[in-house]
Amino acid sequence: MRWKRKDLIGLEELTKDEIETILDLAVSFKQVSTRSIKKIPPLRGKTIVNLFFEPSTRTRTSFELAAKRLSADVLSFDVSTSSISKGETIVDTAKNIEAMKVDCFIVRHSIAGAPQIIGQNVSSAVINAGDGCHEHPTQALLDLFTVRERIGRIKGMKVAIIGDILHSRVARSNIWGFTKLGASVWVCGPPTIIPSEIEKMGAKLTYKIDDALEGADVVYLLRLQRERQKENFLTSLKEYSNYYGIDEGRYRRIVKNGAFIMHPGPMNRGVEIKSDIAERDRSLILEQVTNGIAVRMAVLYLTVGTRK
Amino acid sequence: MRWKRKDLIGLEELTKDEIETILDLAVSFKQVSTRSIKKIPPLRGKTIVNLFFEPSTRTRTSFELAAKRLSADVLSFDVSTSSISKGETIVDTAKNIEAMKVDCFIVRHSIAGAPQIIGQNVSSAVINAGDGCHEHPTQALLDLFTVRERIGRIKGMKVAIIGDILHSRVARSNIWGFTKLGASVWVCGPPTIIPSEIEKMGAKLTYKIDDALEGADVVYLLRLQRERQKENFLTSLKEYSNYYGIDEGRYRRIVKNGAFIMHPGPMNRGVEIKSDIAERDRSLILEQVTNGIAVRMAVLYLTVGTRK
Amino acid sequence: MRWKRKDLIGLEELTKDEIETILDLAVSFKQVSTRSIKKIPPLRGKTIVNLFFEPSTRTRTSFELAAKRLSADVLSFDVSTSSISKGETIVDTAKNIEAMKVDCFIVRHSIAGAPQIIGQNVSSAVINAGDGCHEHPTQALLDLFTVRERIGRIKGMKVAIIGDILHSRVARSNIWGFTKLGASVWVCGPPTIIPSEIEKMGAKLTYKIDDALEGADVVYLLRLQRERQKENFLTSLKEYSNYYGIDEGRYRRIVKNGAFIMHPGPMNRGVEIKSDIAERDRSLILEQVTNGIAVRMAVLYLTVGTRK
Repeated sequence: MRWKRKDLIGLEELTKDEIETILDLAVSFKQVSTRSIKKIPPLRGKTIVNLFFEPSTRTRTSFELAAKRLSADVLSFDVSTSSISKGETIVDTAKNIEAMKVDCFIVRHSIAGAPQIIGQNVSSAVINAGDGCHEHPTQALLDLFTVRERIGRIKGMKVAIIGDILHSRVARSNIWGFTKLGASVWVCGPPTIIPSEIEKMGAKLTYKIDDALEGADVVYLLRLQRERQKENFLTSLKEYSNYYGIDEGRYRRIVKNGAFIMHPGPMNRGVEIKSDIAERDRSLILEQVTNGIAVRMAVLYLTVGTRK
Repeated sequence: MRWKRKDLIGLEELTKDEIETILDLAVSFKQVSTRSIKKIPPLRGKTIVNLFFEPSTRTRTSFELAAKRLSADVLSFDVSTSSISKGETIVDTAKNIEAMKVDCFIVRHSIAGAPQIIGQNVSSAVINAGDGCHEHPTQALLDLFTVRERIGRIKGMKVAIIGDILHSRVARSNIWGFTKLGASVWVCGPPTIIPSEIEKMGAKLTYKIDDALEGADVVYLLRLQRERQKENFLTSLKEYSNYYGIDEGRYRRIVKNGAFIMHPGPMNRGVEIKSDIAERDRSLILEQVTNGIAVRMAVLYLTVGTRK
Repeated sequence: MRWKRKDLIGLEELTKDEIETILDLAVSFKQVSTRSIKKIPPLRGKTIVNLFFEPSTRTRTSFELAAKRLSADVLSFDVSTSSISKGETIVDTAKNIEAMKVDCFIVRHSIAGAPQIIGQNVSSAVINAGDGCHEHPTQALLDLFTVRERIGRIKGMKVAIIGDILHSRVARSNIWGFTKLGASVWVCGPPTIIPSEIEKMGAKLTYKIDDALEGADVVYLLRLQRERQKENFLTSLKEYSNYYGIDEGRYRRIVKNGAFIMHPGPMNRGVEIKSDIAERDRSLILEQVTNGIAVRMAVLYLTVGTRK
């Protein structure tokens, strides 16, 4: 299989075939993490660099484990706390590290577009691990993988994304991914945190959770940043929880529909979801974490392992 | 050899046979660190996670080296400084990491019982690396190993533990370990930092260092936390040093008895021990550090390497 | 090849032959980083410890990658932020880590002489990664390598080092290295930051950049610490830039001479060098970073890999 892209910046630019190539490959990589020896050799002698300008232990760890299970060496820079970037541009930082002959940068940055700019200035591969409110492509890929594995297909499904759509790169990447694969995506939340332009991406918009849940196969909850209340996007967390949180009544509806609950983590228990519902049968939350390793192994293999 | 326990929480629950199984295995692992190539393959493809809710560079490093010398991959989380646990319970944090298919958690926490709670909620192995004032089992195991290697036996020895018994998980684990293997353990220190219940654990109590040193084969000094003075457990460090510190006179007595000095580190030179005594012949302090690698290799091998 | 030195503290004590042995070996190691599998086995099972009492992401990373490409295990301690040295001397810290059977310490410290003191107290190898204003030998070795590779020889070259000579360990190591290999070294900068004793090391001194550039084959710019202005070593950064910075006019002169620009990084663009000149043809700045890996692999191989 020949992968043509140097960088993975977002699902917006990927074709349906490219997305399915990643998901298909992830199926076989998922099996690696269930073995007694969870390690295979394709990236031996490759150097993968975690370049995180915004801290994130979970995503960084998932990429680090994915790389190690492919036998790569991993360097992790938490640039927010290190001296590496003092007075340097992000491009200078990346070019300096690249001069040490590294193969791939995993980049997270609070500014949309930063991974792309780095990708344009280095010859190493660049994988976007989340940039501002733009995209978080590997999160959406693992979500697609999880739905495809559990339900068996994505085409024709109704996916309801609930929460702070405005600030969410996860929502944007998932809208691109699920619509490209033939699902219908609904977004739902308070009007202050739903941008009306979202419909141009192909999503249907509702402010009523009942409409969102109606016939949904997947209920995808976003993490609500508690800071949004201070910024006046929300009147109160309690009100948000009443209108949009998954409580017992809504959970019963999800069960009746045979639907699943997903969340990119970490959860605010008691806000977007009632505390113990996250552990119940219809929740795929920990499966998402498991599948993150497989999907990132596939992305690393395609972008790093198939280059000459 | 078949090891039955999923977790290693403390020496209180281990049998004499189990302790000896670990010590016997550590003998052969100690040899690995003296070779030119200090690495053997039994944990290749396993993922060991250092989950430290309380920082500790020494213990974390010792576990990390032990794991690497068994060819495992190691992830280290210093949870006190990372974003991983924001608003999460320790069980959520552990379950999320476990979902990435890891094999073992090394847990340190300031609250007694935390490693046990994590162990009850994950199927991966959990090794206690120190929890509150409860236990620090691998420290006691390395201490037992050191005494057995140097003196040739533990049964019948007199071990005098000097210092802040009240707050010491090291003291508790050592009391369990040495008494189970047939040594008699004396504890000694100012009355304010010796709990009277300690005698129920099988230790003899004295407030006089002369009684503790009398016929002792091992003089085990605890680290005195300087903060204890502010908390009114001590009148002054100088007074502590005069009454309980190892000075020239007490060292001569130790030499005359053919006894050894041990300390879990890091030392407060000038408080529990006169500065240069730590380097003299009767001190086993650096040997303890060396043996820590061997004992932790044995514990990791038994809990991770022998599971199907 | 038999390497006799346990430690690498500075270029002052190395002979011309020893320096050339390192540079020759680095030629073959440079090739490793251009392969698809950038890893060779000579230090498998060895433990290399980065012991950085002064933070430095770049140098630490370069050593870490060099060690990993030789298949060593690497432990990194940023002692400035860790708990490892609380109340301990640097020798205690090193002896404790050494007790875990490590093979080599890479030491950076703000105090001149610290790596040497550690080297005298441990039997493991010690490599100086920068000590106060004393030496930074691997930086000078990579600079020598870069000049030799690009120009073909060092003997007879004129190397002009521009900037804060007074506080620069890089300048001192380069003066030793280049003069031992037969180059003539000129130092140039404001009188307040040029020590007059520098001439005793064999360097020629000038305060005029025109004299320094005259016939220079290499123009080596030092990083100007912005704090020097507050400490009254400089009247203003702008004045420094006017008198000693590389602007268009001076760059044209460098081009005309067929000379090269070097810098140990990170640059202050707009101070010691006009912003975009660093990317032009005559700049060897990123090549220096690349060669740092090769030279550090050679140093690690000689000090760790050739010991019995």
